[in-house]
Amino acid sequence: MRDLARHPELLSLNTATVRERWTLAQIIEGCARHGIRAIAPWREQVAACGLETAVGLIRTHGLRVNGYCRGGMFPAADAAGRARALEDNHRAVDEALALGAECLVLVVGGLPAGSKDIAGARQQVKDGIAALLEYARPQRLPLAIEPLHPMYAADRACVNTLAQANDLCDALGEGVGVAVDVYHVWWDPALKREIARAGRRILGFHVCDWLVPTTDLLLDRGMMGDGIIDIAKIRGWVEAAGYDGCVEVEIFSARNWWQRDPDEVLQIVRERYASVC
Amino acid sequence: MRDLARHPELLSLNTATVRERWTLAQIIEGCARHGIRAIAPWREQVAACGLETAVGLIRTHGLRVNGYCRGGMFPAADAAGRARALEDNHRAVDEALALGAECLVLVVGGLPAGSKDIAGARQQVKDGIAALLEYARPQRLPLAIEPLHPMYAADRACVNTLAQANDLCDALGEGVGVAVDVYHVWWDPALKREIARAGRRILGFHVCDWLVPTTDLLLDRGMMGDGIIDIAKIRGWVEAAGYDGCVEVEIFSARNWWQRDPDEVLQIVRERYASVC
Repeated sequence: MRDLARHPELLSLNTATVRERWTLAQIIEGCARHGIRAIAPWREQVAACGLETAVGLIRTHGLRVNGYCRGGMFPAADAAGRARALEDNHRAVDEALALGAECLVLVVGGLPAGSKDIAGARQQVKDGIAALLEYARPQRLPLAIEPLHPMYAADRACVNTLAQANDLCDALGEGVGVAVDVYHVWWDPALKREIARAGRRILGFHVCDWLVPTTDLLLDRGMMGDGIIDIAKIRGWVEAAGYDGCVEVEIFSARNWWQRDPDEVLQIVRERYASVC
Repeated sequence: MRDLARHPELLSLNTATVRERWTLAQIIEGCARHGIRAIAPWREQVAACGLETAVGLIRTHGLRVNGYCRGGMFPAADAAGRARALEDNHRAVDEALALGAECLVLVVGGLPAGSKDIAGARQQVKDGIAALLEYARPQRLPLAIEPLHPMYAADRACVNTLAQANDLCDALGEGVGVAVDVYHVWWDPALKREIARAGRRILGFHVCDWLVPTTDLLLDRGMMGDGIIDIAKIRGWVEAAGYDGCVEVEIFSARNWWQRDPDEVLQIVRERYASVC
């Protein structure tokens, strides 16, 4: 097994990790300063920076853009809402292509307002990805379905296991794969099997840690090594499946990491990437 | 399909629902006053009341005890810890028998302190239930494995899907079944299939609701009808599988229901049971 610690160039920073105190321009410069060679930016940060400026800064610093966050949010209460979501996803594809991103990450969306029909929402997601593929596939931009932890099933993503994401890939064919985030899937008894099944369709590998206790459903992720996820084991499974892309650090942490000096955060990200991941 | 609203005698109150403002004695009297004919008490409440007193009160009011909360918490860092857990589970069985409970609910436990080995914890759970069965089976006290939501995998229960619980039942044989709590399983894409698979092994059916947003991982459950779970649909699946036992209302709600007058809570529980469940 390849030792990722010996591949510092594969470390990627999801820009949400330091979003509270740095602009995207500062993040790009910070990554360059700390020897982090890849980023996965968010749409709102790119919008705030300006797409052309962001493209220029990324090119200047020679950063790899391993993924773009995010498309998805397909379900809606009516056809007009779904059409708006698809149109917005087209813009996300356009931006991803402009940035030279290797894939567009899809957080697929949860229940439409007022709905209790999760099976229906899942069908809307499948239809939405199929429709988006008609736009993304000819432009050769891969879509990465990211299963989210079941605690987000109602309001963020009704694809909650890697098995579901793999089933969608099977059904939808070329141009779509999966993003494996250890935070979302570490608990899954079928994880090893489904990672092997995903194989070369794995388009992203995201890391952080699950803290005990976890004090907030959304914004209390831990730094790698501070929680209970056996990240190295999951990384081993992902590599055994054939994945050789970036290891993307994505930490939403309102009470801790977002409060700290981003330079300190990036330094610790580098250290933990080498020692824990 | 049987209409549970026409079976008010099947409504059960999990005593945690009003635990903040009433003692067990008050809860038993309150249930009698509100026409709630079944309860599922917690060990600490029984201990505070005194086991014999609790047995007497339950008998006086003619309440059904559809389940006892709870056994489990099997994994531990060493053999001595696991032996202590088993011994404590023996006492839970004894108490359940004294109370005339129809089953002992098992919240199986998560990772031992310092461990990242969830597969190992799951093996410890399997071994623990097998050992407890040797004590419970001869006394004809069924054990109900309750899969908990994956957000509790680290610190409360590493059995996180009904499929896992069914697999354990298959492996462990007579004397063990499952408790289906809509809060823990509503998101599961395999839920309908696994409820049918569980069939007559379903020993309990628990209801509350998933709020959007949910502000706390443990103590922000909603009253039936206030969230996004299609409780009636899941109840239909459970009944189609052959379950004809109680519908147990279990709401941990630090910010809302635990603050209210318990008499008001029980009245609303009754109304929602009839209109939503």
